[in-house]
Order: sequence, then C-alpha cells, then structure tokens
Amino acid sequence: MDLKETITSIPNWPKEGIIFRDITTLLNNGEAFKYCIDKFSEFAKEVGATVIAGPEARGFIFAAAVAAKLGLGFVPIRKPNKLPRAQITEDYSLEYGHNTLCIHEDALKKTDKVLIIDDLLATGGTSVAAAHLVEKAGATVAGLAFVIDLINQNVKALLKRYKVFTLVEYEGE
Amino acid sequence: MDLKETITSIPNWPKEGIIFRDITTLLNNGEAFKYCIDKFSEFAKEVGATVIAGPEARGFIFAAAVAAKLGLGFVPIRKPNKLPRAQITEDYSLEYGHNTLCIHEDALKKTDKVLIIDDLLATGGTSVAAAHLVEKAGATVAGLAFVIDLINQNVKALLKRYKVFTLVEYEGE
Repeated sequence: MDLKETITSIPNWPKEGIIFRDITTLLNNGEAFKYCIDKFSEFAKEVGATVIAGPEARGFIFAAAVAAKLGLGFVPIRKPNKLPRAQITEDYSLEYGHNTLCIHEDALKKTDKVLIIDDLLATGGTSVAAAHLVEKAGATVAGLAFVIDLINQNVKALLKRYKVFTLVEYEGE
Repeated sequence: MDLKETITSIPNWPKEGIIFRDITTLLNNGEAFKYCIDKFSEFAKEVGATVIAGPEARGFIFAAAVAAKLGLGFVPIRKPNKLPRAQITEDYSLEYGHNTLCIHEDALKKTDKVLIIDDLLATGGTSVAAAHLVEKAGATVAGLAFVIDLINQNVKALLKRYKVFTLVEYEGE
C-alpha cells in the first residue's frame, strides 16, 4: 500500500519554508489507517512489547489503536496539568521554549517493555523525552514507531539506542 | 466486566467538590480497554456507522481504536490551530469562556453516518458541538458513545435527538 498517496503535503504551514504532512487524509481512509495499525502491531510483537504508549494528541490515535488490537494496556503520555495523581515528568527543549511530558507514577511496572508510537519523527525531541520517561519509571523501551520519518541523520544518532520502525519516509521533498 | 473497578475516582480534582474519574487505570488494563473497544464496535455496527469521529484528546483514544478495528475512517475533531486546510468550525460555551471544535471541510461526505466517541458525558457541551459539526458538514450523526455517563437529566434532554450509548454510569456518587 502506498501510504504517501493518502498523506496531504501542505507547503509553508505552519510557517514559511515548512512542508506540513497532514495525516488526516490517511486517517480518513479506513484501509490506510488499518494498514498502519496492522504494521505497528507486527512490530510490537517482534519487539515483545507488553505496553503501548503514545504522546498527546496525535500519538494517541495510533498507539491506542495498536494497544486495543493486541489486548495490551495503553499509557497516554500527557501534557502538564492533565493527570490527577502523582507523576513522573520529563522536560525537553523545543526550538522556542520547552515542553514537559507526564505519566502517572503507577502507569508502568519495572517488567514492562514499552513500545512508543507517534505520528511523526522530526527533531526527535518528543520521542527522546518519551523514552526517558519510560526509563525513569524503571521500565524498558521496546521500540519506537512512527508513521512518518522526515529522515534526519542527527535524529538517527539521537535514537541509536532504540529499535525504530517507520512507515513512510520524506527526505528533502 | 466491571469497568468501574478499573476507573480511579479522585475527590476534589481539578477543583473542590468535583470527583474526577481517571480512566488512565482503565486504559492501563488491556482487557478492560479492549472490552470498551469491542462494545463500541458492536454499537457502531448496530447504528450503521461508516465513519468514527472523536474529540481531542481523550476522545482520540477510544474513537481511533474503534475505527481501526472496523476498518473505517477516523475523523479527529480538533481544537483550533491544529488543522492546516479549510475547515468547518463550531463554537460552544463552557462554564467560563468558550471553546471551538474543528474538522477539515473535506473530512466528511454527505452520505457518511458518523459515530462520535468520547470518554466522558458530563455537561454534553462538547458532544452537542461535535454533533452540530457533523451536521454542518452535511453528514448524519449515527450515534454518540461514551465510556462514562455522569447521568444528568438536562444532558439527556439535550441529546434526545441522538442514539446514545454508555458503558459506565455514576449518579450522585
């Protein structure tokens, strides 16, 4: 299946010089969306994942669907002020400012092997922070999976400790 | 399956007098999460849904998983400034201030029968706005499904035009 045909590229959004990859047209295509979930589920089995996690908000879409398909637990990795109980948090820098990811203290067990799924691998900032969060909780990162990989060698180096799986690559397009 | 046992109740959060129903412990339980998705999928078939939609962010978790299970398209109902192309929007009032829901103009066809899934039915504000959004797009609301119903007769009246399905009820607890 050629997933690229289902993704809409928007030049100069959200700002000049950026090509935004809009996955809403992929999601709207039942066959394409199911294809992503099936492929991620195969990877989850390969790496022996016992839990699926995904960052808010687009990560929820893919990660939760894989968890439900496999009958595994899902851990939403949330922005600040969303979770009501004691938390583990991880700060990370963005181009301008910084961000924080949060999970509940009891969200992961030390024996858990966690597959983190998100829609897009760009700078890797969110993914590294999500992986650190899993490790802070004492669990193991089984792997990282993304729909789209924007192919950046620095990011590859950043994630070299982890098994990374991607479905669609864009390089200098 | 007693889903209530998997939901954590947090008194006085996010403010005094509110009991917050924390579904992260439900999500963390693979069997309980899969049970929700299976039940929602049965309802989706009953009402002949052709598309599943869910509001950002917790709605994504359940709605996307149902879409993937059934091989249907998923439409994320988003907050402002998240979608890159021409949109249909719906404003609605909250206790303090207001909110806006957005979908792309081309997200729904006039023949679509849309099941809207969210985690919580409380004041019904988000759900009514989501249903209006579907109707503005010219599509039909096949039904509304929620994990938790806080049981409010005013909300029942507000949604009486729609088929509503809920998994867990809390009333005066």
